[in-house]
Amino acid sequence: MQKTRLAENQTPKMGKAQGVERFLSVRKNTESLAAPLIPEDMVVQSMPDVSPTKWHLAHTTWFFETFILQNFDPDYKVFDAAYNYLFNSYYNAVGERHPRPKRGMLTRPPLADVMNYRNHVTEAMANLAECQQTPEIFKLLELGCHHEQQHQELLLTDIKHVLFQNPLKPAYHEFKPANRKKAPALSWQSIAEGVYEIGFSGAGFHFDCEGPRHKTYLNGCQLANRPVTNREFLEFIKDKGYQTPELWLSDGWADITEHGTTGPLYWANLEDGWHEFTFYGGRPLEQEAPVCHLSYYEADAFARWAGARLPTEAELEVMAVENGQTKAGEVWEWSSSAYAPYPGFKPASGAVGEYNGKFMSGQQVLRGGSVATPENHWRPTYRNFFYPPSQWQFTGLRLAK
Amino acid sequence: MQKTRLAENQTPKMGKAQGVERFLSVRKNTESLAAPLIPEDMVVQSMPDVSPTKWHLAHTTWFFETFILQNFDPDYKVFDAAYNYLFNSYYNAVGERHPRPKRGMLTRPPLADVMNYRNHVTEAMANLAECQQTPEIFKLLELGCHHEQQHQELLLTDIKHVLFQNPLKPAYHEFKPANRKKAPALSWQSIAEGVYEIGFSGAGFHFDCEGPRHKTYLNGCQLANRPVTNREFLEFIKDKGYQTPELWLSDGWADITEHGTTGPLYWANLEDGWHEFTFYGGRPLEQEAPVCHLSYYEADAFARWAGARLPTEAELEVMAVENGQTKAGEVWEWSSSAYAPYPGFKPASGAVGEYNGKFMSGQQVLRGGSVATPENHWRPTYRNFFYPPSQWQFTGLRLAK
Amino acid sequence: MQKTRLAENQTPKMGKAQGVERFLSVRKNTESLAAPLIPEDMVVQSMPDVSPTKWHLAHTTWFFETFILQNFDPDYKVFDAAYNYLFNSYYNAVGERHPRPKRGMLTRPPLADVMNYRNHVTEAMANLAECQQTPEIFKLLELGCHHEQQHQELLLTDIKHVLFQNPLKPAYHEFKPANRKKAPALSWQSIAEGVYEIGFSGAGFHFDCEGPRHKTYLNGCQLANRPVTNREFLEFIKDKGYQTPELWLSDGWADITEHGTTGPLYWANLEDGWHEFTFYGGRPLEQEAPVCHLSYYEADAFARWAGARLPTEAELEVMAVENGQTKAGEVWEWSSSAYAPYPGFKPASGAVGEYNGKFMSGQQVLRGGSVATPENHWRPTYRNFFYPPSQWQFTGLRLAK
Amino acid sequence: MQKTRLAENQTPKMGKAQGVERFLSVRKNTESLAAPLIPEDMVVQSMPDVSPTKWHLAHTTWFFETFILQNFDPDYKVFDAAYNYLFNSYYNAVGERHPRPKRGMLTRPPLADVMNYRNHVTEAMANLAECQQTPEIFKLLELGCHHEQQHQELLLTDIKHVLFQNPLKPAYHEFKPANRKKAPALSWQSIAEGVYEIGFSGAGFHFDCEGPRHKTYLNGCQLANRPVTNREFLEFIKDKGYQTPELWLSDGWADITEHGTTGPLYWANLEDGWHEFTFYGGRPLEQEAPVCHLSYYEADAFARWAGARLPTEAELEVMAVENGQTKAGEVWEWSSSAYAPYPGFKPASGAVGEYNGKFMSGQQVLRGGSVATPENHWRPTYRNFFYPPSQWQFTGLRLAK
Repeated sequence: MQKTRLAENQTPKMGKAQGVERFLSVRKNTESLAAPLIPEDMVVQSMPDVSPTKWHLAHTTWFFETFILQNFDPDYKVFDAAYNYLFNSYYNAVGERHPRPKRGMLTRPPLADVMNYRNHVTEAMANLAECQQTPEIFKLLELGCHHEQQHQELLLTDIKHVLFQNPLKPAYHEFKPANRKKAPALSWQSIAEGVYEIGFSGAGFHFDCEGPRHKTYLNGCQLANRPVTNREFLEFIKDKGYQTPELWLSDGWADITEHGTTGPLYWANLEDGWHEFTFYGGRPLEQEAPVCHLSYYEADAFARWAGARLPTEAELEVMAVENGQTKAGEVWEWSSSAYAPYPGFKPASGAVGEYNGKFMSGQQVLRGGSVATPENHWRPTYRNFFYPPSQWQFTGLRLAK
Repeated sequence: MQKTRLAENQTPKMGKAQGVERFLSVRKNTESLAAPLIPEDMVVQSMPDVSPTKWHLAHTTWFFETFILQNFDPDYKVFDAAYNYLFNSYYNAVGERHPRPKRGMLTRPPLADVMNYRNHVTEAMANLAECQQTPEIFKLLELGCHHEQQHQELLLTDIKHVLFQNPLKPAYHEFKPANRKKAPALSWQSIAEGVYEIGFSGAGFHFDCEGPRHKTYLNGCQLANRPVTNREFLEFIKDKGYQTPELWLSDGWADITEHGTTGPLYWANLEDGWHEFTFYGGRPLEQEAPVCHLSYYEADAFARWAGARLPTEAELEVMAVENGQTKAGEVWEWSSSAYAPYPGFKPASGAVGEYNGKFMSGQQVLRGGSVATPENHWRPTYRNFFYPPSQWQFTGLRLAK
Repeated sequence: MQKTRLAENQTPKMGKAQGVERFLSVRKNTESLAAPLIPEDMVVQSMPDVSPTKWHLAHTTWFFETFILQNFDPDYKVFDAAYNYLFNSYYNAVGERHPRPKRGMLTRPPLADVMNYRNHVTEAMANLAECQQTPEIFKLLELGCHHEQQHQELLLTDIKHVLFQNPLKPAYHEFKPANRKKAPALSWQSIAEGVYEIGFSGAGFHFDCEGPRHKTYLNGCQLANRPVTNREFLEFIKDKGYQTPELWLSDGWADITEHGTTGPLYWANLEDGWHEFTFYGGRPLEQEAPVCHLSYYEADAFARWAGARLPTEAELEVMAVENGQTKAGEVWEWSSSAYAPYPGFKPASGAVGEYNGKFMSGQQVLRGGSVATPENHWRPTYRNFFYPPSQWQFTGLRLAK
Repeated sequence: MQKTRLAENQTPKMGKAQGVERFLSVRKNTESLAAPLIPEDMVVQSMPDVSPTKWHLAHTTWFFETFILQNFDPDYKVFDAAYNYLFNSYYNAVGERHPRPKRGMLTRPPLADVMNYRNHVTEAMANLAECQQTPEIFKLLELGCHHEQQHQELLLTDIKHVLFQNPLKPAYHEFKPANRKKAPALSWQSIAEGVYEIGFSGAGFHFDCEGPRHKTYLNGCQLANRPVTNREFLEFIKDKGYQTPELWLSDGWADITEHGTTGPLYWANLEDGWHEFTFYGGRPLEQEAPVCHLSYYEADAFARWAGARLPTEAELEVMAVENGQTKAGEVWEWSSSAYAPYPGFKPASGAVGEYNGKFMSGQQVLRGGSVATPENHWRPTYRNFFYPPSQWQFTGLRLAK
């Protein structure tokens, strides 16, 4: 999940001062997320999908330097020429890059240098945005902010995975969450059959893959009022869901058999019951919370076991719009829709646009946002996407029928 | 690609005598396909996706024995109890089975025994179908015939792959095809925007995943009048298509880089030009034929290079219906649609129904049929499906825009 | 284990007629070993270390064609030029060769062609040996016979592995062996400390790695009077030998953990006790037979468990010489000696000599010969060698202390 | 290479005060080796064979805590009970341990805690050694010092590999070495044929695998007066040594083909000639230095190319003794001897003795010591050992004939 292309018809909806303020706020938020960590935490890559915290800190900075400062600020002095190679992620047009599975080898530059790099670029960006008021710069500034917000969520998912590898099961921070109250009873919301329009329209920010807005036909459905909870998922486990091949997609059964999966990532069945690894360390499983860290296969098998199915992404978008949802939910919800271009989709030319279309094979769309999604980053048209076996994101499900 | 579930509302459209005749004809056709081979050809498995010819001969027989004879013929004597284990493919409800990647280890039973098994079951089936006239049996007979026809195509794709491994490049048969005449010029057929119905309806045979018939919204498109040819694909190669990452899906680029792919499977660039391996041995590339043995990634990259895109499966079905197409084409055409359940799809209960829904993740739908598709097996609603990297099927593409 | 180089100073000890007779007898023996098999059995390769029977039949023929007929018979007509590529094993100097792990893909040439190839070469060789009496030809003839005898043993080990893959557990032949009488009680034979000479000397045939004869110092030891039996090895299993890491070499523990090994290859612990797969199909374990199909790791762990150790190859050779042993034993005995050049060893130049020195890393020497070793093929100086994890050869152990 | 077992008959040759002084000096040296690094450098594991610096710092401390303080100091307070799991290396008898390939996941405990752990244990050890004067403690103290010295060399080899992964090619320290003078001309030292005694005898410290002292027969040889130089190895490269299969062991050719090896680890052929990565960053290749970072396969191929061979470990030990060598050389020299037990070798019982015998399969002995071997750690009987493909140690060769 990494996508940063600005849709072409977008007009920034903020004034200049607001833009700079938002930029500074986003930059500060990223640094706050890294603050509880020690330098050693920030360098390690626990699997190829994970990026080290230090890499997230630098790569988001590289984005502003590469696509804005180097193009629009003639006085800008590049902080360190080698960083273009080290902290490029996938932009072929920008040149060679350090291989993704080797990001965890980058013990240097030290954290202190990366923080200096951040400050250097933040300052130069703020100056530029104060002085130059072109719409192009403001569009890229907005894009860079959303790009960095995406990496804020990834930073959290990734560092959770890193800390989990440690037998000491260290806490990311010491805050003790209060017990949750009981989840609302399951009820069903109907969506009528007919032609709907989905996809982004209007003037605000969105990624290219959210458009064009287009018509689609829904055959009528019912969607649950909330995501599936841990308590409900435990019933599936107790009913031998992981031992019943009939419930699983063929690929899913192969996946859990190969990896010996018997529950969501971060769950452990200890002597005194089920526990989960959280940002606060290991804890007894919170039964009333939405089930999280499921693969697509697990979500699909649960839905089949429950006599229901996963919703399509169009169904989830229509529901969010009809409910007037404006904020991200607690877990990303796996849809049954493969990530594919909308009718009429065309990626724009240029390096910044090199992105979203690249990933339109083999992945499933997720909708709804999670606890790790930054405020002001989510929209009802937002399309997240991951490969079916992925468990390390904040992923759950909502039932449909 | 293996799917055999009968749709629930299907009524056989043939009389009893026709049914038996068709059954005997299908059985004989399978044996004709194996006739040019020697016993050694029929035992080898050249990759996990491939099944040996002997296995196809036995598995299609096992299907009739397991789902019809053992359930409906009280006098039937099982040919060999061990064959239930050896020749089951994926039906969990029918018990344990020999692991798929080890099918090539089955040097025994010898070919002669397998042919005896075929005769034993064919005879018992013919007797049963003569004597018992229940609709249930006739539905299963029809299903078993279509199942065997699917395996006829697979037998051909698989044995081509086996023979190709041999440096001697042996011919499957000695027939010399005539030179082809020039392919028609490319032209475009329009499909108007609006709500369409797709999916199977009516009384004839179809697989469960072809229904239910349902409404879908097409946003208007243009489809090419024919598949892309070898000549056109050569242009892509000469234009460095395989060396241009911008043209490829991220997964596709990784796939061709890892495997060093520089052309369709079975192609070789020799000193005197491009050659292809065919059922008649190695030959100079037939420029006017539809390009074949492409992965989804190659089809997608070609379409992008051509300034077009792959069609969706709905677009291809509507086109086939509008054109009154009744026969399979030359190559299966990759669609941009992931293989997923139609709205309202429900797999039926029971072992025979264990199938199609299992495979609804990670695969792409293909439409149109190929030269290897048996006559009377294809319909405009037919949904074939394979994983994106697969090249060994008869797979090509048609452009859309 | 493949080694064919003739030692330089060897003088054939047979007359001309004897040589031809022996040649014809060796050729015939190979064909007798293949006789119980069907063509399908002879084409399959069950793992990269295994070669198909058909390949053994052809490769041993290729050896005579390549190194004798093509060099010494000006009238010889090559049977099929492609066979030089297909049936070369490791001789770089003779040109490119078909990759070893793909030997099982060679469904063609059919068995009948390979038998014709054998007859063609056998006849030409017999004619040549009748007509030309040079020592060079007779040396190569002798070498080719020993080479073919090596492949006779490999043919048996390989086909046993192939048949074992089949859930039907087919018998290689139907002969029912009599029950064995009790193995003799364990006793110890002493070898005195001092300087010994080991390695081949004299005029007879030997492989290059068996020389030069040289002095070595033995520190005195005691060797068991016979190999370890199945009964004794069962005690090790019952005493949790496979669950006790202290007994195992570090590499051995990793090997059995990775593969889940809990007994010798071909053993199975069924409801009614331990069984083994044999050339006569599956049978109850013969308790009095020497334990067979052990890896080096298993042999070493057993010896440690028994409070003993594995002998060195020098100790085993001195024992064989002192006992006047002239015939192969029942199982190859793992020695604690790595396969390495004797002092002064020099591989000869030329293609036939390309061999033995190549394999002098990572393998252990085995001594003593097995039930599958052809008569007249073994000598007390014979050095067999395999990698430590190998189980599929007829390998056991003798205790030393 | 990890071996720590004390030979049984060893008597410490130092007085009490000397022992404590030596202990403190060894501890301090380890910390000096880590001093140039930042915390991020010390946490990363660049391949499974490599251990992070922080792990070396902690594991050597764990050794003293586990085998001495916990057994002999009743007042000792364990620093952190979890460390026993985290920092155990291979001692099964001491309990479960963190898996070796996951040592790089241990971002916690932070470096500061590990340094506190070191100080805590160093202090407690110094107190204990002052107060308790038993020979047993002094033997273990000596063993722990040698164990820590082994890890000093490993720390250096491992951190070199870590830093090399970084495209910035960071220097471990900034010292600029002077140019070397020309290596002495190659000459040959003769060793006469006859019975020799090798292996440790006497009262000093040694590892168990260095004994027992025993007789061995040497057949007479000539050894080079110095290791092979970079200049000489370049000749091998220029003569297409890496492209000539005849020069390589079969396993070696497979290894360099699979990995695309074209020179020693850390070498790069740039536009202005060959460079090597060193502790001082990347530098032009020092032609007069001994060639280093060779696998066994490379050393063996070079020797064959040079018309010579690798020496046995007995030959190298006799040479070192005859020359009165007392200090480690510049590179460990690959011998042609597999690492195996000396006649009469018996590992002692108990956890500390769990070690050396475990590794006696698949590895080659190296002799002579390297620039990274700590002073006072090497002896002429010292047996180092690694797997043939290993390149990351300071490994070269000396010719024999």
